[in-house]
Amino acid sequence: MRCEVVAVGSELLLGQIADTNSSWIGQELAAVGIDSHFQTKVGDNLTRMVEVITAALHRSDAVITTGGLGPTQDDITRDAIAEVLGVDLAVDDELLATIEGMWTSSGRTMPANNRLQARIPVGASAIPVQPGTAPGIVATFDFHGETKVLYAVPGVPWEMQEMMTGFIIEDLMDRSGDTSIIRSRTLRTWGQSESGLAEILADEIARLDETDSSNGGVTLAFLASGMEGLKVRITAKGANETVVTALLDDEEARVRDIIGPIVFGLDDQNMESVVLDLCASHGLTLATAESLTGGLIAQRLTAISGSSKAFRGGVITYATDVKTALLNAPDGPSVSEEMVEAMARGACATLGADVSVATTGVAGPDSWEGIPPGTVWVATCVNGEVETHLLRYKFDRTRIRNFTTITVLNLLRQRLEKL
Amino acid sequence: MRCEVVAVGSELLLGQIADTNSSWIGQELAAVGIDSHFQTKVGDNLTRMVEVITAALHRSDAVITTGGLGPTQDDITRDAIAEVLGVDLAVDDELLATIEGMWTSSGRTMPANNRLQARIPVGASAIPVQPGTAPGIVATFDFHGETKVLYAVPGVPWEMQEMMTGFIIEDLMDRSGDTSIIRSRTLRTWGQSESGLAEILADEIARLDETDSSNGGVTLAFLASGMEGLKVRITAKGANETVVTALLDDEEARVRDIIGPIVFGLDDQNMESVVLDLCASHGLTLATAESLTGGLIAQRLTAISGSSKAFRGGVITYATDVKTALLNAPDGPSVSEEMVEAMARGACATLGADVSVATTGVAGPDSWEGIPPGTVWVATCVNGEVETHLLRYKFDRTRIRNFTTITVLNLLRQRLEKL
Repeated sequence: MRCEVVAVGSELLLGQIADTNSSWIGQELAAVGIDSHFQTKVGDNLTRMVEVITAALHRSDAVITTGGLGPTQDDITRDAIAEVLGVDLAVDDELLATIEGMWTSSGRTMPANNRLQARIPVGASAIPVQPGTAPGIVATFDFHGETKVLYAVPGVPWEMQEMMTGFIIEDLMDRSGDTSIIRSRTLRTWGQSESGLAEILADEIARLDETDSSNGGVTLAFLASGMEGLKVRITAKGANETVVTALLDDEEARVRDIIGPIVFGLDDQNMESVVLDLCASHGLTLATAESLTGGLIAQRLTAISGSSKAFRGGVITYATDVKTALLNAPDGPSVSEEMVEAMARGACATLGADVSVATTGVAGPDSWEGIPPGTVWVATCVNGEVETHLLRYKFDRTRIRNFTTITVLNLLRQRLEKL
Repeated sequence: MRCEVVAVGSELLLGQIADTNSSWIGQELAAVGIDSHFQTKVGDNLTRMVEVITAALHRSDAVITTGGLGPTQDDITRDAIAEVLGVDLAVDDELLATIEGMWTSSGRTMPANNRLQARIPVGASAIPVQPGTAPGIVATFDFHGETKVLYAVPGVPWEMQEMMTGFIIEDLMDRSGDTSIIRSRTLRTWGQSESGLAEILADEIARLDETDSSNGGVTLAFLASGMEGLKVRITAKGANETVVTALLDDEEARVRDIIGPIVFGLDDQNMESVVLDLCASHGLTLATAESLTGGLIAQRLTAISGSSKAFRGGVITYATDVKTALLNAPDGPSVSEEMVEAMARGACATLGADVSVATTGVAGPDSWEGIPPGTVWVATCVNGEVETHLLRYKFDRTRIRNFTTITVLNLLRQRLEKL
């Protein structure tokens, strides 16, 4: 079963709003094993809409359009579908009564324009789920000798989503006859480049490629995500939840055998949530002392709801004398091993924490006191013992700060996991 | 001139990551008057990539692909382009040396896979701007009797953006033969909703619509940008820089007459850079005391290069006793006017600063000591005088923190501008 998505709206092409609907629909389709090979954005132009929908019907069994079902002159998805079907639009009296009822029930009079929304291509039906005033459309029809289905849903995300989960997904599953399911699991990693990871996992990918997947199977994909690290996504397809879970478990074990040390979490976990969970599970409190990262570490930790269980607070010591005053740091150079060690100790002392991370360095773009940008000292302190590391980055200011943040949290994670 | 965008990557179709590149490119193309009628997402599949790129070339003068230029087996945009052009791929020795240099200069050895990135379709060239290890490609060629151009840029947003602004936009303008120039200027605003702004500026937009724009002219667009506020973009088209600058100056004056008080900056300025500039110009130093925002304000300030001229540092007082210990705050309730006032004073005292901002509140999702999420106290302190404000948001945790950050910086900006 193949299903394409066509997102309608000139504002999408102009970048005035992002098309998040296609991504969401793609995710839902993938979860039930329906392929979506193409997704297209097209403006509010009848000829181009008809062209795109027709091309999609040639390639796929089903097409979902989003947007263009409102009551204004710009909203011409109904007209485009009628043209694709080669039929006229006709007012559906029942639908008109429903729409009118929505207005009158809230004490308002329906504007004349909204009558347009009750027009449906002859032979098509309204989608039985209708969360807002815009009805969706479903049309089953013969297209060059094959039965195809065309759905039109509104562009308003929650209305679209209710129609998808309340009707379209099940309708598509019924039509596909495929009862297999697809699930995925993501291993979060830090410390390898995308090409390095691909090289390390090349044999495993080759093994998967050679495995017979006619009754389902497993695939691996890498997603580079900047300061979120590299994600290794395992996707499995099989007859039912038990089969798919077994496939995922087996593959996760194989991948962890190969890249275990750089895996820091799964799925929705991120580096901060893992560190906070480790602190909480060991009954340890956490503090930060940031110079180079200027609050970035603390703000990521506090973005996690429930972080107050472990996180006590932090200091941002940008001016050198603030390092001395707040953290009892030495008078020596600001970017040095002595300084970062003193900052990590000072954070625990000043903020009354068991564990801390500290950063100092040159974010650039310029050198500072002869030290080139990208020179970074980080430290972790666990129950009074400090470890320091020197990092050297060839990045811009933003990436130097981002990579320092995750790297020092990862160093703390590794120490906490050994406790 | 018509230019389509093809976003490559199975992860985009699966909704694992959103395709924000197409929107961004669409915006940039629109700003210089280039039409983008179709934007397509396609997976990492050679046949389907070739199909989509070919269809796009039939409809448009230029095509930009994003993604699929990495070093892994999945990255086959180079192969797809070679097939569309009907040529082979060949290693470009100069390019290979550049890529290898990027690895060796940071003391690493280039993985063998990265050699793949130096392959370019015969007859095409590397895009002269190359921010990361993935080179872009530009190919000019005859397509069914017409000269077309095909650009391939990486999917990593900042690399893509540097290639677009550093090369592709200008190259497209040159090819279009349109000698008029287009420039835009963005007014950064904070404190109005998009519909509110549209209503306030409706008369001005109507005036522009009625103005003869056959020889160029001016348009207004709104871009909602979350915690970056609403951007009002003025775009002017005219024969030369003098004409266009006069159009922009005139329109900026008209818009400022209407919405002046909510405009905080222009173009690349953001709230933090404006606040830092104001501090520096008055010779004032700045500090932060954050509870609710947990370092977000400080990290935004320190993201600005040169921030150390005014910013001395900050404290993140997440645990209540840290507020008392570090900021000499009272023993009373953590989320209160008294607390935020004490935090603002304490920040100036503890960090030795002339000016400070402070935040405390309930970020949610749960209530805290009976206080509902979204209840936020903020304070600004300028030369010893504190002003406090109570904010109430109906947002999620992230938006509560983000909106608090910009709102308190905006309050400080307004006070500094009156000095």
